[in-house]
Amino acid sequence: MNIPVLTDILNANNLLAEQNRKILDEKKIYMINLLASPGAGKTTFIEKSIEYLKKDMSVAVIEGDLASDVDSQRIKKLDIPVVQINTGGGCHLNAVMIQKAFENLELDKINLIFIENVGNLVCPSGYNLGENMKLVMSSTPEGDDKVLKYPLIFQRSRAMVINKIDLIPYLDYEIERIKKDFFNINPEGTIFSLSGKTREGFEPFIDWIKGEIAGFRKE
Amino acid sequence: MNIPVLTDILNANNLLAEQNRKILDEKKIYMINLLASPGAGKTTFIEKSIEYLKKDMSVAVIEGDLASDVDSQRIKKLDIPVVQINTGGGCHLNAVMIQKAFENLELDKINLIFIENVGNLVCPSGYNLGENMKLVMSSTPEGDDKVLKYPLIFQRSRAMVINKIDLIPYLDYEIERIKKDFFNINPEGTIFSLSGKTREGFEPFIDWIKGEIAGFRKE
Repeated sequence: MNIPVLTDILNANNLLAEQNRKILDEKKIYMINLLASPGAGKTTFIEKSIEYLKKDMSVAVIEGDLASDVDSQRIKKLDIPVVQINTGGGCHLNAVMIQKAFENLELDKINLIFIENVGNLVCPSGYNLGENMKLVMSSTPEGDDKVLKYPLIFQRSRAMVINKIDLIPYLDYEIERIKKDFFNINPEGTIFSLSGKTREGFEPFIDWIKGEIAGFRKE
Repeated sequence: MNIPVLTDILNANNLLAEQNRKILDEKKIYMINLLASPGAGKTTFIEKSIEYLKKDMSVAVIEGDLASDVDSQRIKKLDIPVVQINTGGGCHLNAVMIQKAFENLELDKINLIFIENVGNLVCPSGYNLGENMKLVMSSTPEGDDKVLKYPLIFQRSRAMVINKIDLIPYLDYEIERIKKDFFNINPEGTIFSLSGKTREGFEPFIDWIKGEIAGFRKE
């Protein structure tokens, strides 16, 4: 008699992530899980993306932080639905937190959800939330060696955003180095270089994400 | 009959951290556990500190990274003993890793050990390594809200180094805001503002750390 061996299914987080994804698919909502170090510029990036995207779709944001609601207060100013998750000491969001956040959003009115994960290049990469895409961000002041030093999160992401390119003149930063390291471990990934502050390089990203979302809706 | 209630002692990491500390005390070695986000400038800070300190004492470095040995290769160029710990997926160093690192250092010849922890503002704060001091670093491009958003690690550190002050002219960064937030949660802490790149503000830190080490040796 064959003994069924269950591995990933037994992981409660993965099971809940699947449930989240089912809800999203039914409602035709696209969800982006944004991952980066503390201070890489995630909130500003989301703010600017919303400015570009809100003409075409209804956006909501789920903010993950250890403590405080400074980020969700920023998003609220854009007149966008936002849920703040405070993890206490937890170094990542998990699928059950997202399920709770869903209960506080009017999902029927939403086309796109940005999740701003806890600032951390390690833990969040291991927890699926039910997202359509993991998007990893690395900012230039962090240095051009981050892919080499934190490979897993870059390998598991669909695309990498190199943020704060306006600061390159003041740094020792070789953008070609980080691009090369990224494609080495993630040959099918995509890279966008931009500045959340000056908006340089933002439009190619917006065009691309619109295409991704349109492709998903047609499925 | 009283029932002895054992809490912290039962934590294997704390027990091993105590053992580490006992070894350090016997050998009169001072150990600094340096904590920061990825790319805050930890390695450059250690390099520059060593340049100032190596006339007066023998320094060794323990490098913690998920993967790669790029940081320890940098330290090795300074002709300083260095041990690289690769955690695989682990988001922090623990006391047993440091105990293993000790086995690879000639402790009788060392006065000061810098530990560069994994770049992370969350997990490393919960793991004592036997250090004399937790030193947390926050770099200006990360933003002035980091204490508010990751309070635990700032609360548990003896001092905060604000790094990359040379970049402030190019950022929206209020240094008084982060200082105020720090003293709010850590009123006995100390703050140093400096640039690892330009060396501005470095000497007050060096004088202070020499004083801390001298005080420890006299005990």
